[in-house]
Order: sequence, then C-alpha cells, then structure tokens
Amino acid sequence: MPKDVAIIGVGQSAFVRSYGGSIRELAFEAFREAMKDAGISAVDVGASIICSAPEYDKQRSPAGLIAEYLGLNPQPTFMVESVCSSSTTGIRLGYSLIKSGLHDLVVVLGFQKMSEISSADSQERMGRGADIMWEAPFGTMMPAYYAMHAQAHFARYGSTEKDLALIRVKSSKYGVLNDKAVYRKEVDLEQVLSASAVAVPLKRFDCCANADGASCIIMAGAGKAKEISKKPVWILGLGSATASMTLTGRGSLTGLNCARLAAQQAYEMAGLKPGDIDVAEVHDCFTIAELMAYEDLGFAEPGRGMDLIREGQTYIGGKIPVNVDGGLLSKGHPIGATGGSQVRTVVLQLRGEAGAIQVPGAEIGLVHNIGGVGVYGNVIILGR
Amino acid sequence: MPKDVAIIGVGQSAFVRSYGGSIRELAFEAFREAMKDAGISAVDVGASIICSAPEYDKQRSPAGLIAEYLGLNPQPTFMVESVCSSSTTGIRLGYSLIKSGLHDLVVVLGFQKMSEISSADSQERMGRGADIMWEAPFGTMMPAYYAMHAQAHFARYGSTEKDLALIRVKSSKYGVLNDKAVYRKEVDLEQVLSASAVAVPLKRFDCCANADGASCIIMAGAGKAKEISKKPVWILGLGSATASMTLTGRGSLTGLNCARLAAQQAYEMAGLKPGDIDVAEVHDCFTIAELMAYEDLGFAEPGRGMDLIREGQTYIGGKIPVNVDGGLLSKGHPIGATGGSQVRTVVLQLRGEAGAIQVPGAEIGLVHNIGGVGVYGNVIILGR
Repeated sequence: MPKDVAIIGVGQSAFVRSYGGSIRELAFEAFREAMKDAGISAVDVGASIICSAPEYDKQRSPAGLIAEYLGLNPQPTFMVESVCSSSTTGIRLGYSLIKSGLHDLVVVLGFQKMSEISSADSQERMGRGADIMWEAPFGTMMPAYYAMHAQAHFARYGSTEKDLALIRVKSSKYGVLNDKAVYRKEVDLEQVLSASAVAVPLKRFDCCANADGASCIIMAGAGKAKEISKKPVWILGLGSATASMTLTGRGSLTGLNCARLAAQQAYEMAGLKPGDIDVAEVHDCFTIAELMAYEDLGFAEPGRGMDLIREGQTYIGGKIPVNVDGGLLSKGHPIGATGGSQVRTVVLQLRGEAGAIQVPGAEIGLVHNIGGVGVYGNVIILGR
Repeated sequence: MPKDVAIIGVGQSAFVRSYGGSIRELAFEAFREAMKDAGISAVDVGASIICSAPEYDKQRSPAGLIAEYLGLNPQPTFMVESVCSSSTTGIRLGYSLIKSGLHDLVVVLGFQKMSEISSADSQERMGRGADIMWEAPFGTMMPAYYAMHAQAHFARYGSTEKDLALIRVKSSKYGVLNDKAVYRKEVDLEQVLSASAVAVPLKRFDCCANADGASCIIMAGAGKAKEISKKPVWILGLGSATASMTLTGRGSLTGLNCARLAAQQAYEMAGLKPGDIDVAEVHDCFTIAELMAYEDLGFAEPGRGMDLIREGQTYIGGKIPVNVDGGLLSKGHPIGATGGSQVRTVVLQLRGEAGAIQVPGAEIGLVHNIGGVGVYGNVIILGR
C-alpha cells in the first residue's frame, strides 16, 4: 500500500441552514480547526485548493479572497469544481501536487453558503447542473433524478420504500450524536414512511437538505507528515471516473457506473478489496443513493444492497458501518464542503478519535463522493 | 532542466466576438485541432481538465458536459478556475497529475463564451471578481483597476500614454497576421492616442475585448511523449503565486507581485534567467499590463519597461519578442481559453511552425498569464 501522501489535519464548521457570516469567515471556521489539529500555522502551507460549486455566492473567484483571509498569500491557490464532489476532487489534486514534488503541504478547503440565494433559486441552479440543452428544459431536478433511480431499483430488484426508510432511521440515530449536523432529531420508520412526498417514492426524510458549511483537509508528503504528525492517515487509494450528463446516456439506472469505476481504481491502487474496509462514508444525498453505494462499492452484490440495511450490517457492530456520522441526510449537504466532511469523519475514525460513533479497531476507511446526478464519482481509501 | 512532462498537441478555435454554437461545440473546435496535432484519439486520454470562469454560461458544471461531448467518458474530469489564468492553472495541474503518476496523458481545455450575456452583465460579473465586501461596492471595474496601475507607473517612472500606444501598435501589426484573432486591422499611433477614453489614461485601443473562444493543450509524461510525438515541447519551469484581492492590500501599483514571484519560481525550476528567453507571451489585457510584465519578468529593470517598446526590442528581431501573435489586445480575451492560447503560440514558435511570426531559432519560450487584477500569477517556461 502506497504511503506517500498523508492527511495530517482535519476541520469542519458546523453545518447549518443559514450561516450569519461571510464565506471567508465560514471558511476560517474549518481552517482554524484543521490548523490546530495539524499543529501548524499558515506560513507552513505551500498551496491551497478551494473547492466550491459557484453561483451560490455573489463573490466570483472565491479562491483568492479566501486564501488571502486565511493568511495564505502569496502561495498559489485556485478553485476546483465537480459539483457535490468538488472537495474530493480537491484532495485528488492535493495528492498530485504533493506527489509531483510541486508542493509539500497543501490545504484543501471546501465550502458552500447556499443560503445566500432563495431555495427556489438554489433548485434552479442545481437543475442547470444537468444538460441544459437536452435534459434541464424538461424540468429535471435532483429529487426527480434520484426518484427514477429508486423506481428502477425497486422494479428490477424488489427493494422497497421501507428499505430506504431504514437507511434514514440509521442516519437519524447517528445524526443525534453529531454536534455539527443540521438535523439532530431521531425519526422512526413510521415518521419517514408517512412524510409528504417530494418525488415519488422519495419523501421528505429521504432527501438531504441544503446547508451552509465548510471543511478543511491538510495534506503533506511522507517526510513532512512524519515530521509534523503523530497520527498521519495515509491516502492508500484514489479513484475517479465520469458518466454521461444525461440519464438517457446511461446503461443502467440501478447504480452509478462512475462510482463503480472509481471504486475499482481505488481498490486496485490500495491493493485492497471491499471486505477490507472497516468504515465507510458514502454520498447519501438521497436514501436511494446510499443503497446504490452499497452495491457500487462491492459491500453487497448488485441488487442485494437492501439486505445490508435490513440486517443492520451498516450500523456500528455490523459488517460494514456506513455513514455513522449521520451522512448527508442528517448533516446537510453544503456542496463544496461535503467530501471534506466525509474525509474528516473517516480520518477521526482511523485515529480512534471518533468518540460516541467510534468503530472499534477501524484501520481502513473509504469515502465515496458523487458529483451531479452520478456524473462525477470519487472514491478515496484511507489507512492509518 | 527537467524534461518530465511535455506538450504534444495544441489547438485553438478562432476567437470571435460572438460564437454561434454551444459551449460543447466551441470546445470541440479546439480539441479537434489539438488531437490532430498530437496524432492521437480520445481513447488515449487519461483525464481532462476543463478551465473556465463560470457565470457566463447557463450550463453549470461544464466539465462533465464537455468531457462527454469530446468522447472522454469515463475518464475523470473537473473544472478549474483562477479567472483569466484558469487554463495555465490547468496546465500546472496537468503537470502534477502526470508527474505524480496518476495519469499519463491529460487534456487541458479552456473555454469561454462571454457573448451569452450582455456586455453590461459581463462587466458586472468581472467587477464581482474583486472583493465584494471591500472593493466592488465602490464600482471598481477592470479598466479602472488597470488605469490606476498606469497612473502609478506614469507618476513614478515617467512612462507615458505614448509608450502604451506603442504597445498597441505592435499588437495590431502582429494581429493582422493571426487568422484566429478578433481584431485584424493595423492601427497607428495617432489612432490609438486619439481614441475615446475608457478609464483615463486607458483609451479604447488600450483595452482587450471580450470574446468567445476555446484552447486545448495535450500533455504527456516523458515516455509517452517520446513514443507519440516527434516534436514534444517540454515544461521546463512552472511558477504560481497570489496577491491580495484588493489594491489597497498591495505594496505597489507599478507592477504585479504575483507575477514577479511566479517568474522567480519558474526561472529557478528551469535553471534559466530572463536573458535566456527567446520569445514570450504576456497577459496584455491592457497595454499597461504588457509594460508591467516586461519588468515583472525581468526583461527590463523596474521602471524601465518603456525603453523596450521605445527601442522596438519586443518586436521580432528585437532582444525579446513579446506577443507576436497579437496578444490579448488583438486576439480578444475569452477568459478560460486565454492561457492555453498563449501556450499554443509559444509551442508553435519552439517547433518552428509559427509561419509569418516565427522568431528565428527560438528554443526557450515563456508564458505569463494573470488572473483577476493581479490576484493570480502563473508563469510557464517551455523548451524544445
């Protein structure tokens, strides 16, 4: 397993429905925590990567603004975007900037302040993440897309609304324990199943919420990491793939091909297989997305993802604990910050610092982060 | 001099005031030319980097859309942004993805279709590239920023409006020869000096124009490059730095610190000095920007940049030919495509394929690309 690049610091702001400060202040909340965690200061940083899906903020080109506010001038910075997977793309680039020898210590800062525009405007912008010539004009929106995935999975494999609801119940159980989550209230099966419909079969609790938030991951080369950190967490595997922007361009709706390919690449690079993973964070923007992830990542056979949640295997103590920080469904989903938040959770798990949600003895963790409606798939495998 | 990563193909669409097709078609025009130039096909590509300053297009997350249209699925793609220097940031990332071993062949595609919104909206968006809390509210716009730089240089060093006009006359002379340029009409000193004011002392011909366009650079690792290409052009040096978003945060207005630092880094990595450069493309969004670049890149002493243009030293045949493709002033400035267009010009020069604008015997070339008002500075040194 390669141990060339490590994560030496993690930080996250609280994820909230509406943050009162500016984007630079929001970014600082995650940055400060990560710098303290790493035990370094701004002068140690060689480059920063700002991850965001633009058009929510008035500020254009936020990278320069945020890097300046964080005290990172004159080191290089830029913005990277792959919608909801922006910050894991940032981590892939951080790895390559370090491994290539251009930089030794890189900050990957993801943020989104979605509350600056109205919820309707936000949905409209998300819709324009679909192909604006061939699909968006038909009124496609995120819940509708994932509803089609759910219907396809139900029809082909016999999964049910109750299976999805079980995933939400798990999320809420762990969300209660996460003091940085938007939703910290336990919901039961009945509540999830009787909630109002958003896009059939997805109901209110099947959908994650827009949120404001920031995450920060600090990465270093092997020498630097060993010098600075008592508990580096290594990047063992990286995978990244894309798929058609339109659903009509996909071979199947019961899973995400970009996620499958990204997982294969990451497993191969790490020399590991699905059974080696001790804890995983997957991109549960909707409950059906978590179900598909079980299969795309090889935790379950194709079409048998629902067995894992029916048997409670994705709870702590089960075969493969998934989203034990509450996932996007409880934490909220501030687009550019989400992947970094997932990575933070896994890093804390591998260090044994996850507190109430600690998976005992976790040594290998996986992050699965999806951008757009299955357009961009990133998988990262981490090890201590 | 490092010879690890090469440019093996270059392409560019015509730069025009208003392109009739969609962004994917615009991107394809540059991509097709670059693929033909490299002698490869889409299946050879390991990853693509899409460079763009968003908010001009309706399409969000254009990377997935463009990669799909170019036939690059399921290889990874993402968007990178550092405003007007986006595509040289893309090239830096292409270098790191290759050098790190993650990919062997990377496409860097820059584009902008600025005509989709009105000219007034475009100016407003550019204004929001400045700090929206502390500077943009005062009505700052691009010409005003560079006018302040010009006034500062005039006051401190005694340069004049005529010096700036001489730069525009040179641009027009070479622009006539560039069949991909927006402006292909020769202008004389009198015309430039008598044009209507935009922001004193900058007049109409001192400013580059918004444009639609795309550029494409294909990069490969040393082994692959030697296998595929008879004429690889090597990346010898890379530099990148940032400065404060606000002018008030800068120490001086007579040059750009981010450019100076980026140049130092690039010279150091390449083991070269300013006198070794045979041909250069610099970011002449305004005439004063080219004058400052002469000094920031070390072609002239601080405060003596005007001597170079007064003596004709930046023409072909002079000490250091600069912007012999007409530069942004003649070509137009389609934000995300500009850096790639500069790199293309230098690559053609180093291959001896620059036709009417060939600098005899050019072996080492330099690209200077600036994002925002001197916020992001990228310098790339290339050699055959």
